[in-house]
Amino acid sequence: MTITHSPTPATSPQSDPGLDPTGGRPVVPRRGSRRGVGVAEVRLTDGFWAARQQTNTTATLAHCERWMDRLGWLANFDRVADGATGPGRPGWQFSDSEVYKLMEALAWDYGRTGDPGTDRTLRALTARIARAQDDDGYLNTYFGHAGQRGRYVDLEMGHELYCVGHLLQAAVARLRTTGADALVDVARRTADQVCREFGPGRREAICGHPEIELGLAELGRALAEPRYTEQARLFVERRGRGLLRPIPLLSPSYFQDDVPVRDAAVLRGHAVRALYLSAAAVDVAVDTGDDDLLASLERQWTATVSRRTYLTGGMGSRHQDEGFGEDWELPPDRAYCETCAGIASVMVSWRLFLATGDVRYADLMERTFYNVIATSPGPDGRAFFYANPLQQRTPGEPTSPDAVNLRAEGAARAPWFDVSCCPTNVARTLATWQTYTATVGDDGAVSLLQYASGSLRLTLPDGAALGLEVETDYPASGRVVVRVVTAPDSPVLLRFRIPSWATGAVLHEDGRRIEAPPGFADVHRTFAAGERLELDLPVAPRFSTPDRRIDAVRGCVAVERGPVVLCLESADLDDAGPLDDLRVDPTRPPTDAEPGAFVQVRRADRPEDAGEGLPYRDVPPGLDAASSADDAPPLAVRLVPYHSWAQRGPSTMRVFLPTT
Amino acid sequence: MTITHSPTPATSPQSDPGLDPTGGRPVVPRRGSRRGVGVAEVRLTDGFWAARQQTNTTATLAHCERWMDRLGWLANFDRVADGATGPGRPGWQFSDSEVYKLMEALAWDYGRTGDPGTDRTLRALTARIARAQDDDGYLNTYFGHAGQRGRYVDLEMGHELYCVGHLLQAAVARLRTTGADALVDVARRTADQVCREFGPGRREAICGHPEIELGLAELGRALAEPRYTEQARLFVERRGRGLLRPIPLLSPSYFQDDVPVRDAAVLRGHAVRALYLSAAAVDVAVDTGDDDLLASLERQWTATVSRRTYLTGGMGSRHQDEGFGEDWELPPDRAYCETCAGIASVMVSWRLFLATGDVRYADLMERTFYNVIATSPGPDGRAFFYANPLQQRTPGEPTSPDAVNLRAEGAARAPWFDVSCCPTNVARTLATWQTYTATVGDDGAVSLLQYASGSLRLTLPDGAALGLEVETDYPASGRVVVRVVTAPDSPVLLRFRIPSWATGAVLHEDGRRIEAPPGFADVHRTFAAGERLELDLPVAPRFSTPDRRIDAVRGCVAVERGPVVLCLESADLDDAGPLDDLRVDPTRPPTDAEPGAFVQVRRADRPEDAGEGLPYRDVPPGLDAASSADDAPPLAVRLVPYHSWAQRGPSTMRVFLPTT
Repeated sequence: MTITHSPTPATSPQSDPGLDPTGGRPVVPRRGSRRGVGVAEVRLTDGFWAARQQTNTTATLAHCERWMDRLGWLANFDRVADGATGPGRPGWQFSDSEVYKLMEALAWDYGRTGDPGTDRTLRALTARIARAQDDDGYLNTYFGHAGQRGRYVDLEMGHELYCVGHLLQAAVARLRTTGADALVDVARRTADQVCREFGPGRREAICGHPEIELGLAELGRALAEPRYTEQARLFVERRGRGLLRPIPLLSPSYFQDDVPVRDAAVLRGHAVRALYLSAAAVDVAVDTGDDDLLASLERQWTATVSRRTYLTGGMGSRHQDEGFGEDWELPPDRAYCETCAGIASVMVSWRLFLATGDVRYADLMERTFYNVIATSPGPDGRAFFYANPLQQRTPGEPTSPDAVNLRAEGAARAPWFDVSCCPTNVARTLATWQTYTATVGDDGAVSLLQYASGSLRLTLPDGAALGLEVETDYPASGRVVVRVVTAPDSPVLLRFRIPSWATGAVLHEDGRRIEAPPGFADVHRTFAAGERLELDLPVAPRFSTPDRRIDAVRGCVAVERGPVVLCLESADLDDAGPLDDLRVDPTRPPTDAEPGAFVQVRRADRPEDAGEGLPYRDVPPGLDAASSADDAPPLAVRLVPYHSWAQRGPSTMRVFLPTT
Repeated sequence: MTITHSPTPATSPQSDPGLDPTGGRPVVPRRGSRRGVGVAEVRLTDGFWAARQQTNTTATLAHCERWMDRLGWLANFDRVADGATGPGRPGWQFSDSEVYKLMEALAWDYGRTGDPGTDRTLRALTARIARAQDDDGYLNTYFGHAGQRGRYVDLEMGHELYCVGHLLQAAVARLRTTGADALVDVARRTADQVCREFGPGRREAICGHPEIELGLAELGRALAEPRYTEQARLFVERRGRGLLRPIPLLSPSYFQDDVPVRDAAVLRGHAVRALYLSAAAVDVAVDTGDDDLLASLERQWTATVSRRTYLTGGMGSRHQDEGFGEDWELPPDRAYCETCAGIASVMVSWRLFLATGDVRYADLMERTFYNVIATSPGPDGRAFFYANPLQQRTPGEPTSPDAVNLRAEGAARAPWFDVSCCPTNVARTLATWQTYTATVGDDGAVSLLQYASGSLRLTLPDGAALGLEVETDYPASGRVVVRVVTAPDSPVLLRFRIPSWATGAVLHEDGRRIEAPPGFADVHRTFAAGERLELDLPVAPRFSTPDRRIDAVRGCVAVERGPVVLCLESADLDDAGPLDDLRVDPTRPPTDAEPGAFVQVRRADRPEDAGEGLPYRDVPPGLDAASSADDAPPLAVRLVPYHSWAQRGPSTMRVFLPTT
């Protein structure tokens, strides 16, 4: 396949927006009829995401650097530079990638804030990793040096190319926000080394953990370097052909090496691996015009979302192998829903949205933003959930702000993990959150996808400026006010995403009241500076009933409020008794209690403790104790946003509530 | 604590029953008022377990030896003996233990059959392992020799002491069936080495996988060697005090090193580890008269059985860590229920029964025998289930009789596993099954615990002989006929176990019809040769309803028939449509269809495929598609014994069935 490409302009610092007036975007496909918005085009002013982005800037970035310093993950680079490698290297074989993800987060955040301290931190890290780069461009602190195993001897589990992928993504962030610098130079030399080693006609191999493909694809775009795109394409195409050696206790599907990407029907195996690969495959499909591959990835997304995805948007049903389960295998208690898988899901959906404009991708992004990504960091930005289960049976132990969590689970957020992929992934995602809020089409259409207070200063394809101010306290309320600040003299198509749950949304504009069904509500006309448009999304709480094929939540309902999934937390029960004894009365709709809701419940008698025997009884099903709840007096209990759970000390929690 | 012990007589060959007239028993506590029966006291003639024991003898034992030969696990001993160790050793670090479990099975089986070929095989294996023993008694093929890591450098995961434990159990089997020989000598020297290394005042350490405790306790009993008992006690007492180093991704509870054994409330962590430890702790408690420890272990058993045990008796809710879940965490689809955990559960319950005589322990043993242990081996004795889930959503792939299964899961039995603990564990359990069928009390009471056709030739404490012939096709029917062949002239207390499910059991004896509630039905009188007693256990199929706190099977029922859990298998559905669409009508009791049952079901409409969206709908719960089943025409479908599932090709399967 010949790769054609239009010469993408080199990027430039945000302060000189000459070549990229957007200020930088994470994903810049070579083809397609719409683009995302850049860090200089959107500024969040306040609200749900602005607060989180600010905490990320002021707390999380330094938090991550401190932990990696403390654990020696940064010093690993110094040891390579100083020829001091040997036994006892701290950290897993993939710890370099955490440094790179932090660097990516710093680069995006500097692009937004222009804070000199952030730039200094990034430059210092760049100098540190640059010293560790081998003369031929190879860069890794775990393999390839004195006292270490050789390069690429363990492609299955070694994560060398995975680490490179994250390095390249960091360089792309730098390139797109401030332009080429030492980090970009390091990345380019590393990418060249990878291409020499694994390029066409060279070593026919892949990395056990997809990620290199993402880095190469985007660096290829940012530098207009077709070799990188081609290398990404090669890695994607090689996958699923059994190039990885068998690993005991892991199946080829864990690595997505069971079926070629274009032949797969659904995502499977390790969820983050599957989603990173899928995102990169979209990049390759778009950039090479491989419509068959793109169509396959859309089908895989559909199959995955309709049968292997949680109400929260979370993906990954199994702690074992951090993996997808089978269709309908969606246990709430053992849901893994890794934070990184939510982030990776957003990466896939965003690329598919840019490629197709299909609103369902933006719908899933919103669901995942509010219910997976927002759930991970605690309010201070210094503790994180790794797994995001939908039920917690035991309150668990509080975590220490000073202790590394050795396992990716627990009923409390932890400051850092032994395998600590999530905190830096959260950091780089929050640093770019605003770039997912809107797109600009080649036809000048402006689509508002995610609602948050802020200002948009968009340059339309014809060079005209469109300035919008958005005011909303969404998702607390569903009222979104858009004020036109500047607008061209010609018609603009302004599109409002109406979420799939928002039945009954209304758009007020130009004196009209427009019923807006889910999808896009379009306004196509010439706008005047100063005018207001108002969108009312019905965020009133509502029951959600699972498909009956989801065995694990049979007989249960959940409650959602706008885009926010709610939960019942033991902290709100007072004397209502144990959480597991409550039964929701489904005939009485939930009532609003912003940011949550109230539901009417009844308390089922505690069954006699089986005590000596097994928890199964030879009684006809109709007579089991659950029905006792029907006669109990009703009781109103408060539900809170799932993303805010476990902020009031150890707690039990349920998203899905049994019904009477 | 001072250990007192009565001098236990040395064992002797079965052909010369001078010192141990029972012919050998797996568990011989130093204290207690009842004993199990030996391989020479009970002979199964035909029926459910006789057939399985016979297949074990004729097929499984040789099958296990062939695989270990083929994979080089046997040759590992030769390499140590020949000083040829080095890189590339085949098998995991614990593969020696499989050889020892096979040797234990061979020893017990020879005790039963007296087959010279079995004896030759065992002697040949003994010679082979004896050559590999170091001069000081240390015996391991993975550690401690040229090109290997040193002894005991990785107690957490190295499994050296675990392997020794299985060696000692093999020696005990030999000692109890044929007397001291080279295997016993090897074991004794190994045990002495362990005591020197880890004894009082020596290295304060434990093994990551309990098992050494069991081997030492029983070898201490068999050889009347208090040092071994004391060493077992030390290992049990040291546990739960954090002596194991932290292992990334595994918690101390995985190793039961979180809480001292006597302080624990419930079994937790890796199920086989927890259960082996619990069994050994009972041995220690009984032999040392530690009643507090025994009481704690009884409480832990109760808590585990009432909240962490499947209807099948299976234990272990998580594939991850092969572990127990939390209370009420009992998913049917991802049930691990490792075959070895079932075996280990029987080991615990048997010891507790011997210590207490409480019928509930024998009840759980029966449940576990029929629904976990009988489920693992296929009819030919050459393929095994490792995990025993209660639901299979996809038919999976057939296994090859020639391929090692790399993972401990799948919808078909496999001939061998990369981690192949289960086949040899099944072999040693089936080789001793008859020894769990009855006990003899110090007061002369004879308790019949498990029902199978066969003959019992018991020596009562006063030296009198009691001969019984049992005829039954249990569990196909519930009729058990006991004929007295020989009996003393004085009264004997004959006790029949009435299983907990057997409401309405009737005992016919001496012309009387006795209603026999669950527990024990006692007949205390002088018996005459030739007379018959008949027990009628109601094995008609019945619904079983799970405790409503088991979220994963809410709204479902199971069907049991006598001690046998049934399941619905897609192979029996013909044109009834997909298994997951069926809803059982709980108002219509199941009808008998030996060995299974029929239930009345209705087919729910397939919900429209959510297709583009998530599998959750904004509809009130009452209107979900499941209720459509209420109006569908009824349909009778056949259920089959769970232990016989997956014998008709790849299949989907459910034990718990949703109700209309």
